Amino acid sequence: MAVNLSAPGRLTPVAGAEWAVGEAAIKKPGRNDMAVLKLADTATVAGVFTQNAFAAAPVRVAQRHLAIGRVRALLVNSGNANAGTGRRGEADALACCERTAAALSIDPEQVLPFSTGVIGQHLPLARMQACIDALGGRLDTDHWLDAAQAIMTTDTVAKGASRHVDIGDGATVTLTGIAKGSGMIRPDMATMLSFIATDAAIDRDTLDHALREAMTASFNAISVDGDTSTNDACIACATGAGARVARDSAGWPAFMEALTDLARELAQAIVRDGEGATRFITLDVTGARDANEAREVAFTVAHSPLVKTACFAGDPNWGRILAAVGRAPVADFGIDRVAIALDDVAIVADGEPRDDYAEADAAAVMAKSEYTIAIDLGRGNAHARIWTSDLSYEYVRINAEYRS
Amino acid sequence: MAVNLSAPGRLTPVAGAEWAVGEAAIKKPGRNDMAVLKLADTATVAGVFTQNAFAAAPVRVAQRHLAIGRVRALLVNSGNANAGTGRRGEADALACCERTAAALSIDPEQVLPFSTGVIGQHLPLARMQACIDALGGRLDTDHWLDAAQAIMTTDTVAKGASRHVDIGDGATVTLTGIAKGSGMIRPDMATMLSFIATDAAIDRDTLDHALREAMTASFNAISVDGDTSTNDACIACATGAGARVARDSAGWPAFMEALTDLARELAQAIVRDGEGATRFITLDVTGARDANEAREVAFTVAHSPLVKTACFAGDPNWGRILAAVGRAPVADFGIDRVAIALDDVAIVADGEPRDDYAEADAAAVMAKSEYTIAIDLGRGNAHARIWTSDLSYEYVRINAEYRS
Repeated sequence: MAVNLSAPGRLTPVAGAEWAVGEAAIKKPGRNDMAVLKLADTATVAGVFTQNAFAAAPVRVAQRHLAIGRVRALLVNSGNANAGTGRRGEADALACCERTAAALSIDPEQVLPFSTGVIGQHLPLARMQACIDALGGRLDTDHWLDAAQAIMTTDTVAKGASRHVDIGDGATVTLTGIAKGSGMIRPDMATMLSFIATDAAIDRDTLDHALREAMTASFNAISVDGDTSTNDACIACATGAGARVARDSAGWPAFMEALTDLARELAQAIVRDGEGATRFITLDVTGARDANEAREVAFTVAHSPLVKTACFAGDPNWGRILAAVGRAPVADFGIDRVAIALDDVAIVADGEPRDDYAEADAAAVMAKSEYTIAIDLGRGNAHARIWTSDLSYEYVRINAEYRS
Repeated sequence: MAVNLSAPGRLTPVAGAEWAVGEAAIKKPGRNDMAVLKLADTATVAGVFTQNAFAAAPVRVAQRHLAIGRVRALLVNSGNANAGTGRRGEADALACCERTAAALSIDPEQVLPFSTGVIGQHLPLARMQACIDALGGRLDTDHWLDAAQAIMTTDTVAKGASRHVDIGDGATVTLTGIAKGSGMIRPDMATMLSFIATDAAIDRDTLDHALREAMTASFNAISVDGDTSTNDACIACATGAGARVARDSAGWPAFMEALTDLARELAQAIVRDGEGATRFITLDVTGARDANEAREVAFTVAHSPLVKTACFAGDPNWGRILAAVGRAPVADFGIDRVAIALDDVAIVADGEPRDDYAEADAAAVMAKSEYTIAIDLGRGNAHARIWTSDLSYEYVRINAEYRS
């Protein structure tokens, strides 16, 4: 059902970053549901996490361990989010770190734990610890795709991508990332995990800056259903096995472009695999007074169930778009200068339907699986671009049946 | 499909308030789709309107005419919202007022126009004007139910209610109201029209105060899908044919209770008839620092597609409630004191599942067609109560097929 999305054929190994996967039968048996990423001693790590006030136990532990600054391993499980689990949840997350540290001969505070899945149930700790014990012997730089599969929940397609960047002077660095998530998706992270590694050598502050910069036009610019999960995280690791990249180096712009592009591809893959998605929609808002206003309008339209069901139906009911724009939290907002277009079909100008607008033209755009809704507010020069999906019967079915 | 809702048997006439209905075949023939309410010369009128920045043409005209303060008639049509129709839309709304004024021998500025239905199409003015011409001869105080039917769009049940209030000294006043709406429902009005009349004699400022007061715990406390329409309005008319009611009269508390109760019944009827609704859910938020915070949390939970689909499925996936509470825009918010219950089944205490919680108990509550989700934030004394519905396959079907 995913919109123009297929699993990556092969993901490029990154020197200094080895994955191992295993089965702990966390929710049910028959698939790998744990993965560990071991990083070279030279690695730096940066992360961004959910803004949900009720961050899950593993998120709180990961934030603490990341702050210490000696990360050497990431541990991920699917099938159980270890969220809403109180003090025992945090103890469980720490116990997983300890077991991982023992298996990899590192310290527990060098492990970042990540969990995704059902909220409010305790982890099956014994099964997970037994699985962790076996992971240390299976590490390999070529296991990215296995890891992408192990972290899936309601995802229908494994998500991953690689980039090679020429950073000048004949040097090249590699970036490979994986992601999971298809529901509970909105900005400031979602039920979304993403792990990106590069063999570049990058100091920690620079990597942190690069990751946050890349977020704005990627993971923080997508929405499936407006719900923000308790577990979202995006982690970037620079193993240091390859060439050095710094903000003043000639290769910096090329590196940032590759990182942003990779993050955008992963973020868009999450929308394409959005629960029940049948359309991949780009929302382009221009003519705003500032970027925040542009984003508010874009997300208000993206979250409107009426717009989303019209997209599902392929019905050019543009009045629903106009009504959603009108309820966005924007001060001193008038309809008089608003313009709306679907791809190159101009529908509304100066707040009114254009005389030359023919509904058949808009219907032809909305019959496609991918198109752009362009909204010009006509009151400034700021803009925002985000990506979303439609609201289908299948979304309801998936979320009504998720636990059964 | 409406949840425990049937059409009113009979609505009590209000002296000084006469309805007439007719068929203009605005969207399609075969039903009454226009209604006019003629008020006695002694009447006062108050109104609240959509907060959508792109208020529809009839809303803008109605607000201007209401401000003049000589209202004698309301004109309502279903099938076309006359929204997103620019200057011609406003001219059309004014033309309808003029024709109504001619039919009733009053001034155009004494007419308030209301439209509900599809956005972005021009009114079929000639057919509507011909219909208006005939309405003047059909006025009757006993046509409330006909009017309730004429203003329906995707409503499946006509909505109306009456109250009789003893205001002391042997005097009684009557209140009767009708409403329509089932999608695009959220606070600060929705695709929702409601017209309430009383035979009481009430000065205009007092009526305005009474209406706004009654809104908070009724029409501004409901949500079906989080979308706010361009056309919402709630109008109160006091015809002056009966006893006088003022803020210092002995009967004031009884009058306000009846008005609020009537408005609440009509507002709840809209949720019960929410598009595709299979559950009627009360959200009770307590322990907030202030009422605004309580409302923000309540509406964040009410708008969560994941909570709504869990309600549809009858699945006590309380983690979704907790996650939605956690993403509400509340400052300095910690999970440690949060409690969640479904009716009398306590699930979460101090941010964690209770030891004595048995999922079967919660499942039994969620199998019912009506229940309360109670959320205690444990950080203050403010509270809020709102009503919402679930998200079903039928919601998607209705909104994907609305124009076909």
